[in-house]
Amino acid sequence: MSTLAKVMSKFRLAVVQLQVSSVKADNLSRARRLVREAAGQGSKVVLLPECFNSPYGTSFFSRYAENIPGESTQVLSEAAKENEVYLVGGSIPEEDGGKLYNTCTVFGPDGEMILKHRKIHLFDIDVPGKIRFQESETLSPGSSLSLFDTRCQLLVYPGAFNMTTGPAHWELLQRGRALDNQVYVATASPARDEAASYVAWGHSTVVNPWGEVISKAGPEEAVIYADIDLQYLADIRQQIPITSQRRDDLYAVTSVQEGSS
Amino acid sequence: MSTLAKVMSKFRLAVVQLQVSSVKADNLSRARRLVREAAGQGSKVVLLPECFNSPYGTSFFSRYAENIPGESTQVLSEAAKENEVYLVGGSIPEEDGGKLYNTCTVFGPDGEMILKHRKIHLFDIDVPGKIRFQESETLSPGSSLSLFDTRCQLLVYPGAFNMTTGPAHWELLQRGRALDNQVYVATASPARDEAASYVAWGHSTVVNPWGEVISKAGPEEAVIYADIDLQYLADIRQQIPITSQRRDDLYAVTSVQEGSS
Repeated sequence: MSTLAKVMSKFRLAVVQLQVSSVKADNLSRARRLVREAAGQGSKVVLLPECFNSPYGTSFFSRYAENIPGESTQVLSEAAKENEVYLVGGSIPEEDGGKLYNTCTVFGPDGEMILKHRKIHLFDIDVPGKIRFQESETLSPGSSLSLFDTRCQLLVYPGAFNMTTGPAHWELLQRGRALDNQVYVATASPARDEAASYVAWGHSTVVNPWGEVISKAGPEEAVIYADIDLQYLADIRQQIPITSQRRDDLYAVTSVQEGSS
Repeated sequence: MSTLAKVMSKFRLAVVQLQVSSVKADNLSRARRLVREAAGQGSKVVLLPECFNSPYGTSFFSRYAENIPGESTQVLSEAAKENEVYLVGGSIPEEDGGKLYNTCTVFGPDGEMILKHRKIHLFDIDVPGKIRFQESETLSPGSSLSLFDTRCQLLVYPGAFNMTTGPAHWELLQRGRALDNQVYVATASPARDEAASYVAWGHSTVVNPWGEVISKAGPEEAVIYADIDLQYLADIRQQIPITSQRRDDLYAVTSVQEGSS
């Protein structure tokens, strides 16, 4: 978002909490329509949910997977260009070299793909009597970090939490990340489908750098909006100057990455 | 807490939310009495608040500061030994070599000091019209990390939040740290004193590794208890195996420390 931040200190963000069905073409056309709706409301950045073109589930990933570029990313590119928005394309099951990935693509207002990120930490959970889900049974993890700049101002997470972790952790993690890093955090979940094998929590949310929820959806399909104010963010960083207090003499977080995907 | 964890999978933790006055001797005797009370309730680990022997404020630190060992740490050592508890001695203003530090000491059940930690990230805040406080005006930061082991199970924070950051961030940060690291988190605040120059938020808290508050004080002086269950913690780490999903091939957090204090 560094490019964006240079040209706009205030902009509108939209989060599309898509109702995902088992018909890929419907998912794509509905996403395209809601991106247009969001742009019509003045949004400059639009965020789609994790697994927006396919039901979320290990039994679906291989069936819905595509190459990148492919049908779904073509739709994203066109939607970004025709509406002149930055479009964070949630994620789709990606097929590459016989492996499947959970992959997020981001498109600029000119329709160019500016990022492809493969989920690095796959979601495995087994809470007895509550939920068992293992992305790692069918997906492969990405092996490349996606870094924009060192002073990020907006974190976006397409994510599909569930009925166990959703009420316990979804909002907490967002507020924690926002406060820890003094950034805006926006999350996009698929809308809840009680009939699905994996029932998503919904509740797409935007949190400000003070850790406050400023916009939040219910479980159903919705587009939510938040006005992002980077001057407000700068003020908070000045009021509690945690970044200038970093002790680079004592510790470091380093990338040990050699290759790239 | 690694030593502790090896011998006990369940134990009682007590957090003493001390009412700190301007009379150091009173603070020390009250702390000693409440440690005894906590031990009498079966507690094996007792936690005192930040700046428990002195009012919290840049104008007080030099006046109340001591060497370590000194009067206050002698009381802590005796209290730990006579009650056979691990005692996390909150913090006190420490004087050493003409500099002042905000220093936490920890004593074992034999009365031996097992840790001395000088606050590394001093607290500076300036929210116009709300609060301005700059520890860095009088205190020096520590320059040594205090590391117990790589798989910590209990994080303890003696801390004095205020009426601005308290309601906004105190509980959020604790729940965030607990969930991120799948650990118990316990915080000890001084009791609130509306007449003090720095009004502490109070609300000492214990959070479990699922991110739930399991014990919480009000603003007034209190001892709160929590039964720590390390098997429950182990279960959660198995249910959501975030540590085994670390990607040490991609990133690392490293200590770049050369000297030690």
